[in-house]
Amino acid sequence: MKKLINKPEDFVRESLQGMAAAHADLIKVNYDPTFVYRATPLIPGKVAIISGGGSGHEPMHAGFVGHGMLDAACPGEVFTSPTPDQMLAAAKQVDGGAGILYIVKNYSGDVMNFEMATELARSEGIRVLNILIDDDIAVKDSLYTQGRRGVGTTVLAEKICGAAAEQGYDLSQVAELCRRVNLHGRSMGIALTSCTVPAKGTPTFELSDREIELGIGIHGEPGRERTYIKLVDEITEILTHSIIEDVSYRRTVREWDENQGEWIDVELIDPPLQKGDRILAFVNSMGGTPLAEVYLVYRKLSQICEQQGLQIVRNLIGPYITSLEMQGCSITLLKLDDELIRLWDAPVKTPSWRWGI
Amino acid sequence: MKKLINKPEDFVRESLQGMAAAHADLIKVNYDPTFVYRATPLIPGKVAIISGGGSGHEPMHAGFVGHGMLDAACPGEVFTSPTPDQMLAAAKQVDGGAGILYIVKNYSGDVMNFEMATELARSEGIRVLNILIDDDIAVKDSLYTQGRRGVGTTVLAEKICGAAAEQGYDLSQVAELCRRVNLHGRSMGIALTSCTVPAKGTPTFELSDREIELGIGIHGEPGRERTYIKLVDEITEILTHSIIEDVSYRRTVREWDENQGEWIDVELIDPPLQKGDRILAFVNSMGGTPLAEVYLVYRKLSQICEQQGLQIVRNLIGPYITSLEMQGCSITLLKLDDELIRLWDAPVKTPSWRWGI
Repeated sequence: MKKLINKPEDFVRESLQGMAAAHADLIKVNYDPTFVYRATPLIPGKVAIISGGGSGHEPMHAGFVGHGMLDAACPGEVFTSPTPDQMLAAAKQVDGGAGILYIVKNYSGDVMNFEMATELARSEGIRVLNILIDDDIAVKDSLYTQGRRGVGTTVLAEKICGAAAEQGYDLSQVAELCRRVNLHGRSMGIALTSCTVPAKGTPTFELSDREIELGIGIHGEPGRERTYIKLVDEITEILTHSIIEDVSYRRTVREWDENQGEWIDVELIDPPLQKGDRILAFVNSMGGTPLAEVYLVYRKLSQICEQQGLQIVRNLIGPYITSLEMQGCSITLLKLDDELIRLWDAPVKTPSWRWGI
Repeated sequence: MKKLINKPEDFVRESLQGMAAAHADLIKVNYDPTFVYRATPLIPGKVAIISGGGSGHEPMHAGFVGHGMLDAACPGEVFTSPTPDQMLAAAKQVDGGAGILYIVKNYSGDVMNFEMATELARSEGIRVLNILIDDDIAVKDSLYTQGRRGVGTTVLAEKICGAAAEQGYDLSQVAELCRRVNLHGRSMGIALTSCTVPAKGTPTFELSDREIELGIGIHGEPGRERTYIKLVDEITEILTHSIIEDVSYRRTVREWDENQGEWIDVELIDPPLQKGDRILAFVNSMGGTPLAEVYLVYRKLSQICEQQGLQIVRNLIGPYITSLEMQGCSITLLKLDDELIRLWDAPVKTPSWRWGI
């Protein structure tokens, strides 16, 4: 294993120390329990947005803490869920009295721990809602997941809900918005290579010099098919058509029901994209793929969308939700409306995403 | 070779097509000869900044075309100099009557072709100056270079000179500023892995599972030493101390002298950094290294700078001048003054760099 690290067990903590040193004007890091939060003063009456999950997907989530996006992020060890005490401590730190939205990627460990944190926080008088992101259409169940995995749409939800919170949306409105973004977002990824988790020291999976994994998860979970390398245009066609023709759009997610005071199953149904829909096209690098290649994917994607009558009115291109040094990419298509566009365009200032400020 | 590409010979053109499709509000691409330029109207009386070089270093340079940075970029094939006709056509396209500054990385092909383009443009009545960037302190001469190579400081020069041009600096002032940025900027890099040029199909060089190359060039040129993998703290110490104690700061670069109407050698002398200096610390990913590792480098770098009495007052962290999917990083330290800080902070809006707008 060749990596720019010291001891594997210090990887996450030291990386956060580097972030804290680099962006002292934007973020602070608390250790034991570990969470990243805004360096700027708390805004009373603003809904606070918290996300988190295993490390190794940087810049998500810690790189998105700041004005217009997250109030706090809870990083676990690499590809390992953070613990409820991290999530609870973060909630206490950033609660401005208007409640907390936890944005949770659908992995069993994350789901369980964020549910526990939700209950702990509520028992301490903090109002918390909890929205799952389950946008990965590649497989129905996966290695660490019941149902669809949460991937690229998480980044979009954090941007859009962060803007809404900044603009004074209340907790129910931000949660409803987050549910809508998840409902309208669909993703699928592909890997050319594995990544190596520092603590393990060997690749998570093996691919030969000619193989790729279609439908890869962001922790290297198996996808739909292992196949031979194809032209980028062919790969992009498979990903894009899989997303457009997705038939897994009917599913249930667990959410906290404030009225009933219990966890309930919410049914999500969002029919496939249709001609004339306005979309945000997000081409994400898995971390190790050159930007020039990511633009090759975007090139074909934009051609397909045009043929299909889908209007790309916004886009995002680059490494946002990565899998360490994995080579590959994912495509996320999010159906937009005027409100989502307005929130997307709002200013943001975080370590890894800044515009308008 | 596994890459997200179609035919290797179409790689650069198709990637630019993807960029043009993604950022139609910011850039346009001209083909035959190939250059990228701002989609926004020409600003009469503004000095135009043009850079260029081989492709494979994205986002540099095409990703930096837009308000507050470049007016045009001339991409060659991967790791291959662009041609004088590209540079001339770009100059004609973006000339607003106030002249052109070519920012040129010190590689023999780039230098020769930009010199030729300078003469061609001048013969057509366009005023052009030409500043070399030669900030890589790793080796004195290299595979494609006489003297020091041009690396990370190029990114900083494009940002700072772009801001100055936007603020109405005249051509001599922008050139003088660029010379100062180059004079005060020092860099050194390290590679954990090679990259593979699409047209070649095999790695540029071989490193064993335990080897690294200290002082690597951005085209995989040999550095100072091939050695065994070390802790990131040790690697960062070697890079940082090499930069701080640099003794190669006395050198000459060729520039066009407008008064004499000929190329002259300009002597550059900038003594080493001193206690109390304010600096910009730039930790650049070579493309394939996870962001979390880049922050580990920044962590140690900031500690060393503090020990040495150097004040990091600005920083830049991430993949800006890459070498395709190469794993590794480079450190650039730029001595700042009030004017450079003011220009650094100015708004910018390009495909890959945006803030304040």
